[in-house]
Amino acid sequence: MAKENQFVNQIADIETDFPRWYTDVVIRTKLVDYGPVKGTMVIRPYGYAIWENIQKELDARIKATGHQNAYFPLLIPYSYMTREAEHVEGFAPEVAVVTVGGGEKLAEPLVIRPTSETIFGEMYSKWLQSYRDLPILINQWANVMRWEKTTRPFLRTSEFLWQEGHTAHATEEEAMEETMKMLGVYKEFAENCLAIPVFTGRKTEKEKFAGAVATFGMEAMMHDGKSLQAGTSHYLGQNFAKAFDIQFLDKDGTHKYAYTTSWGVSTRLIGALIMAHGDARGLVLPPVVAPVQAIIVPIAAKKEGVLDAAADLKAKLVAAGVRAEMDATDNSPGWKFNEWEMKGVPVRIEIGPRDIEAGKMVLVRRDTHEKTEAPLADAADAVKKLLADVQHNLFEMAKKRKEERVVSAETMDELLKGVEGGNFVKAGWCGCRECEDKIKEQTAATARVIVEGEHAEKCVCCGKEAKQVVLFARAY
Amino acid sequence: MAKENQFVNQIADIETDFPRWYTDVVIRTKLVDYGPVKGTMVIRPYGYAIWENIQKELDARIKATGHQNAYFPLLIPYSYMTREAEHVEGFAPEVAVVTVGGGEKLAEPLVIRPTSETIFGEMYSKWLQSYRDLPILINQWANVMRWEKTTRPFLRTSEFLWQEGHTAHATEEEAMEETMKMLGVYKEFAENCLAIPVFTGRKTEKEKFAGAVATFGMEAMMHDGKSLQAGTSHYLGQNFAKAFDIQFLDKDGTHKYAYTTSWGVSTRLIGALIMAHGDARGLVLPPVVAPVQAIIVPIAAKKEGVLDAAADLKAKLVAAGVRAEMDATDNSPGWKFNEWEMKGVPVRIEIGPRDIEAGKMVLVRRDTHEKTEAPLADAADAVKKLLADVQHNLFEMAKKRKEERVVSAETMDELLKGVEGGNFVKAGWCGCRECEDKIKEQTAATARVIVEGEHAEKCVCCGKEAKQVVLFARAY
Repeated sequence: MAKENQFVNQIADIETDFPRWYTDVVIRTKLVDYGPVKGTMVIRPYGYAIWENIQKELDARIKATGHQNAYFPLLIPYSYMTREAEHVEGFAPEVAVVTVGGGEKLAEPLVIRPTSETIFGEMYSKWLQSYRDLPILINQWANVMRWEKTTRPFLRTSEFLWQEGHTAHATEEEAMEETMKMLGVYKEFAENCLAIPVFTGRKTEKEKFAGAVATFGMEAMMHDGKSLQAGTSHYLGQNFAKAFDIQFLDKDGTHKYAYTTSWGVSTRLIGALIMAHGDARGLVLPPVVAPVQAIIVPIAAKKEGVLDAAADLKAKLVAAGVRAEMDATDNSPGWKFNEWEMKGVPVRIEIGPRDIEAGKMVLVRRDTHEKTEAPLADAADAVKKLLADVQHNLFEMAKKRKEERVVSAETMDELLKGVEGGNFVKAGWCGCRECEDKIKEQTAATARVIVEGEHAEKCVCCGKEAKQVVLFARAY
Repeated sequence: MAKENQFVNQIADIETDFPRWYTDVVIRTKLVDYGPVKGTMVIRPYGYAIWENIQKELDARIKATGHQNAYFPLLIPYSYMTREAEHVEGFAPEVAVVTVGGGEKLAEPLVIRPTSETIFGEMYSKWLQSYRDLPILINQWANVMRWEKTTRPFLRTSEFLWQEGHTAHATEEEAMEETMKMLGVYKEFAENCLAIPVFTGRKTEKEKFAGAVATFGMEAMMHDGKSLQAGTSHYLGQNFAKAFDIQFLDKDGTHKYAYTTSWGVSTRLIGALIMAHGDARGLVLPPVVAPVQAIIVPIAAKKEGVLDAAADLKAKLVAAGVRAEMDATDNSPGWKFNEWEMKGVPVRIEIGPRDIEAGKMVLVRRDTHEKTEAPLADAADAVKKLLADVQHNLFEMAKKRKEERVVSAETMDELLKGVEGGNFVKAGWCGCRECEDKIKEQTAATARVIVEGEHAEKCVCCGKEAKQVVLFARAY
């Protein structure tokens, strides 16, 4: 068996066993490992570097839209959770509870934040006095914990990392504007940084955040045609303001409750990246967030001058702002090609004695495997251009799939066939919970988002008048 | 009473009531607030921005020395804590324990990490195979929790933020070299970024980290002459390697235990900054980590052209990489001067109609209150130069105090007088725990670091032969 095939055999076939392909890839490429406590993960350096790049890009956008970062406590008094009725119903079953501190049983149990609306609410209530203090626009990068029964690295873990924005506004209009603005920030970020096109829209009552008036989500299509909720933005109305007494003295001299929002994305995005772009050979990382953008593989590395030339090239690329690395280990070039392909590095650069003599290098892009040559003198520009091309192409490929794989259904049979064929399915819906539950029961698909501006005659389930068009899909 | 004095009255006198000055300043400048759970803090945007600047500077140094970031789980099985005898003795009394998850009592209680040697150890044991895998050089930025009885914002809180590096090496020499290297990184960072000169050295057995073979610390002198432990670097020998079975196959074909280190600094550094540089008017922030480096205060702001000129100036400074803000609120200039002085902004820029006409601006530095003028055409360079001067001067002032306030003692009386006078005191020590305890009992001073290269005849406490010279001080 050829060495290359041996290597690819280390990961399951992406088409026939996508779940195992995913697990094999995340473990084998050292993105992540299982933590000792069930449902926890260790994000290893290669995975964490992706998160750092996500943070850098998204944090700049969060700040550019006027938000500031802060840090709120991990532990929340259990009683806070109970102040907003829907919130406690949604989150109480999955909290981790601290009952002992400093060797003593605590008077009140404390929960590890599953999300922080309650503790932000408590502090906003204390800080907010007058309309002049509004809006309050705060974000935090933090760990949160939700005790999940079925877990998978990045996609669903008991502890995960995320950012959560929490804002307070004087009016409903402003709060709704903020909710939609941040959904837009997420969409732009997903498309331009992660190269993932997304569907955005309002969630159904069943799928909304526990305690929100309305939840807006962005949904991304994965390799197998299933959907992954990649980010959410919640309009909370006055629900939390009333539960935590977030009031302000308005211009008219009366006290009013504020309108609040919250929005977040998490380390789930790493799972989204893997499942949106990966192929039979492993990871395919978009250059904007790839820890290593270009890997230099010296050919005939023992020949005089090769390692030096490769090191020079690396230095030149790094100086130009490219995240370049050189693999100077004593593994064979073939082994290295496979290893770095599996790790999803967007561009491989091969440089050997003949290349050096000819003043050129060989460039191989990860997305199409296309091989080109470029002059060494022009290395930084050539690599940067290729990285931009890869980023663009990954988005276009994902977009093409997203467009091709949306079908419409007028009957439950069509809906079932659609999702079984790995599609997202648009269908009319009467708006009632019974139909939504029945659709899930019969097709394993859930309402991902409500589609704006489209119309259907009848509910795909009960045949009564359709109030909305909904995008259904099986989801992670 | 003049408005200015009214304002200063909002914070306690720094010379007569330093503890209250500290609390007043951190709350009044909105660096921090108390969280609802006793001993927790909310790091507000102004405080968190300092932490972000600290992270940016220190993270670059940690990466430049070959380390990679990762993220390990928050929850650690209780049994892990017990595997290293000294470690459990030191940390078990102050852990927070999760006993319930997802509505069910857990089979094994879990502790919220007070530090992560145990869980890093468990994973390193799994990952490490051969000498080729060494060294392992990983750092993480995370929250940790220690159930403290007496807490103060930044200085001692039950939850705090930090970075913790955990490394594994093939030999004792390499691990010790790493320990000292990171101590050096911390010292350079403290001096050049925080403008805080530090004493570094080995800790006594009593003061070392629970589970370490040797702890090296850096100690900073605060305004009141007390010491603050600002960072530590631990040589762990094979203690954790044996407890967690961190072994590797060496070149000689035998299995050996690795040698490990750990090192960390925390949000305590924000407390250090405040107490090292603050003055009667409030915070004095070193430019390198100040959230706002230059505050522009428009004078006669309603006169035509003033706000535009101020906004232009701000844009020019921001484009040049200066963290500049403009205060365009309708408060009086005097109120603004005081407010931004209290907030410790290194440089204030005043710009009014006459300045604009003359093509100049007024610069006031926070450290010396010195007022100068500079041409608007040359704004960015002038402000940058002044920021560099302030940074340099803050370090020089702190260094001068550090040098002036170290005295020597040969008797317990001299030691007591020294620390009561707000000094660090060098004294001979026989090396026994009894004397160390007695010194603490009688003077409230503790051994901060062992001084290398100096010699004393007798132990300041028992009068027997001195084995070491120790730097004693009262400490936070």
